Amino acid sequence: MALAARKPARRLNELTACEIAAAVRAGETTCEAVARACLERIEAREPQVLAWHYLNPDRVMAQARALDKAGARGPLAGVPFGAKDIIDTCDMPTELGSPIYAGRRPQSDAACIALSRQAGAVVMGKTVTTEFANRFPGKTRNPFDPARTPGGSSSGSAAAVGDCMVPLALGTQTTGSTIRPAAFCGAFGYRPTWGDMRLAGVMEAAGSLDTLGLIARSLEDIALWRDVLLGIAPQPMPDELAGPRIGFCRTHLWPQVEPASQKLLADAAQKLARAGAQVADVELPAEFERIEDAQRWISSFEFTRNRAWEIANHWDRISETLRNGRLKDGLACSFDRYVEARSFAARCRRTLTEILQDYDILLTASAAGEAPAGLDHTGNASFCAIWTTTHVPCLTLPLFKGPHGLPVGAQLIGKRNADRTLFAAARWVWRVLA
Amino acid sequence: MALAARKPARRLNELTACEIAAAVRAGETTCEAVARACLERIEAREPQVLAWHYLNPDRVMAQARALDKAGARGPLAGVPFGAKDIIDTCDMPTELGSPIYAGRRPQSDAACIALSRQAGAVVMGKTVTTEFANRFPGKTRNPFDPARTPGGSSSGSAAAVGDCMVPLALGTQTTGSTIRPAAFCGAFGYRPTWGDMRLAGVMEAAGSLDTLGLIARSLEDIALWRDVLLGIAPQPMPDELAGPRIGFCRTHLWPQVEPASQKLLADAAQKLARAGAQVADVELPAEFERIEDAQRWISSFEFTRNRAWEIANHWDRISETLRNGRLKDGLACSFDRYVEARSFAARCRRTLTEILQDYDILLTASAAGEAPAGLDHTGNASFCAIWTTTHVPCLTLPLFKGPHGLPVGAQLIGKRNADRTLFAAARWVWRVLA
Repeated sequence: MALAARKPARRLNELTACEIAAAVRAGETTCEAVARACLERIEAREPQVLAWHYLNPDRVMAQARALDKAGARGPLAGVPFGAKDIIDTCDMPTELGSPIYAGRRPQSDAACIALSRQAGAVVMGKTVTTEFANRFPGKTRNPFDPARTPGGSSSGSAAAVGDCMVPLALGTQTTGSTIRPAAFCGAFGYRPTWGDMRLAGVMEAAGSLDTLGLIARSLEDIALWRDVLLGIAPQPMPDELAGPRIGFCRTHLWPQVEPASQKLLADAAQKLARAGAQVADVELPAEFERIEDAQRWISSFEFTRNRAWEIANHWDRISETLRNGRLKDGLACSFDRYVEARSFAARCRRTLTEILQDYDILLTASAAGEAPAGLDHTGNASFCAIWTTTHVPCLTLPLFKGPHGLPVGAQLIGKRNADRTLFAAARWVWRVLA
Repeated sequence: MALAARKPARRLNELTACEIAAAVRAGETTCEAVARACLERIEAREPQVLAWHYLNPDRVMAQARALDKAGARGPLAGVPFGAKDIIDTCDMPTELGSPIYAGRRPQSDAACIALSRQAGAVVMGKTVTTEFANRFPGKTRNPFDPARTPGGSSSGSAAAVGDCMVPLALGTQTTGSTIRPAAFCGAFGYRPTWGDMRLAGVMEAAGSLDTLGLIARSLEDIALWRDVLLGIAPQPMPDELAGPRIGFCRTHLWPQVEPASQKLLADAAQKLARAGAQVADVELPAEFERIEDAQRWISSFEFTRNRAWEIANHWDRISETLRNGRLKDGLACSFDRYVEARSFAARCRRTLTEILQDYDILLTASAAGEAPAGLDHTGNASFCAIWTTTHVPCLTLPLFKGPHGLPVGAQLIGKRNADRTLFAAARWVWRVLA
């Protein structure tokens, strides 16, 4: 027996999706064992974290056993995942974070759920979402500090992955609803190029901006799950893009980034340069300061129309946060203002495409810093508004710890339709910095 | 009493939506009387036309009476409308044209239904759609010749409006699913600028292309209903754009247009020129011949992913038409091919924007000609592919009769985000030609 200290074996619930699927396919573990490990973690931690809106252990075990019996071989064989509760599931309720939809049972799975199941994954349960994926928070707490928000709107998805309850969870993003909570909960978060992944069976918040969001504990998992969700054969993880051209993009929001996070990001940029990246400061045109406003009008206008039924029939069961926020904005927004905001966003999209020609990725803040204290709000989503509105792919990497020892993410931005280049560059960044 | 012949009074079910709403608001008729007139027409004609997938007269009368009791004042006060059965309704089944969804009951209304109800409209029932809004036809027949197709996929919506069963009906369009059936059934059809109208509660076929489609019996009705569906205060109908700059755009598909329809359109272009329009022939760049192919890959790729649950769980309940068509294409389409098609479409969009700078509208064919004989297919959708894929607004006007005495439409194309200019020009075209 070697004298050197051996790393203690990780529990099954701590493995990544790629590791789980490989072990299942190799016969080294079973879907049932993996599901049980995740359920045990949930049993132990859920009273503190409150990540789950719906969880039925029997249903989970039944799925896992059926997969074992059939001989699970798929790319996500035996991988448990959580799904934000605005995503339809045929065998579990989907209640959209609103009492209006208590007991709602869709007949079929959303496309993203069906594609994941087809790849061998197990739906663990439905994760807590803010009300209609907007701002009014659910019950979930930050797994690293129960007095702090997990972020939102994909609150439960981020908390469940960050806490090793599941290796994967699905969210969505219309402003910063995947990147922000993933960063707050110490997970990898990915928002794909807008338009790539289908949204059948997912509640529309604001169609011009909505995408799925993927939350995981490794880049490999995100790359693999992306292929599954695109409905294509899994490709090998792209090779590292060594020494990439990185634009360090503080944006006009830099003064709102906490000093400790400013320093973490600036130090990271220096380390990456020393390791061989071509790092240059990127200043966005002044008009980009107006994107957040455009994003607000676009999302408010669209969100409000999409909720026409709830507004007409259940106004008193909508939170004041939503009524006095998104809905007030949306009802006040004229069609001309909306179209103007949309056209402005399209212009910024073209400008950003030109700017990105000189870079492989941008490096920027995922959020203002660590998850803020308090559970009555989900934190500032502004740091995602530019990227969401310009439809580019985004990743947050759980690279840092802040002054309270809580996770702080670094956000990497890719070019539209170049998500795999983003992964390749992120892989190098991760190796250099992590 | 005047000696001149008086036009016989039209029945309530023959009125336009604007006329009905005005009469209701003026107290000249009631929502109940209008609903009853429409139900009587349906009772008389439904055995031949088969436009309705779900129709419950009691539910219709209850809605109408409730409106009368409340004092209907909205822009669509008392106006009955049909809704394609891929659009969710909280009080009626929504079965997507597939036996897989028999008995499906959504909990809430789609945004477009809720906005219409809020404006005072009455949901008459659910109209027949092809299977999942694709090609496999439903039971509906052309109201002008029961041996001919009504077109599709919004088959029942077009037939119901063309047959004066309702003044308005909602459809959708992913290729030519509103313009084509509206033209075949002698109705006005409108596909808005892509992205304008929200799709919460509407089955996603292919999100990059999907829009709602409006079918009516007047331009005024379409302009009014558009405002309602945008969730904005109704604007006055735009004034006529007299003597507009019209590009007569035969496209590469001209040889596929039936000779009689070619002549009708060419004569119309001449008449419009004589009446003061600036009419010029527009030839699209040769690459536009490839749009139909790009449209096919985009819609097949997206449609197939969106149907992942049905494919995995109910393959044998999907029609052969769909399995061997869209789904076969979609399963065979690589992600690279899909992204390339999407990029090509975006380039064509920019090119068309430049071309349209010299025109107010384009004039083109809505379909190859009259509705073709037979009920086992819904006709050639190609004549809409260019316009659907380039996201521009489209109108079909029921201007002509073909060699069999059946309706033939003229399609007018506007600029993106200039839908009201399209209406203004269409109004002039209609007055000159109708």
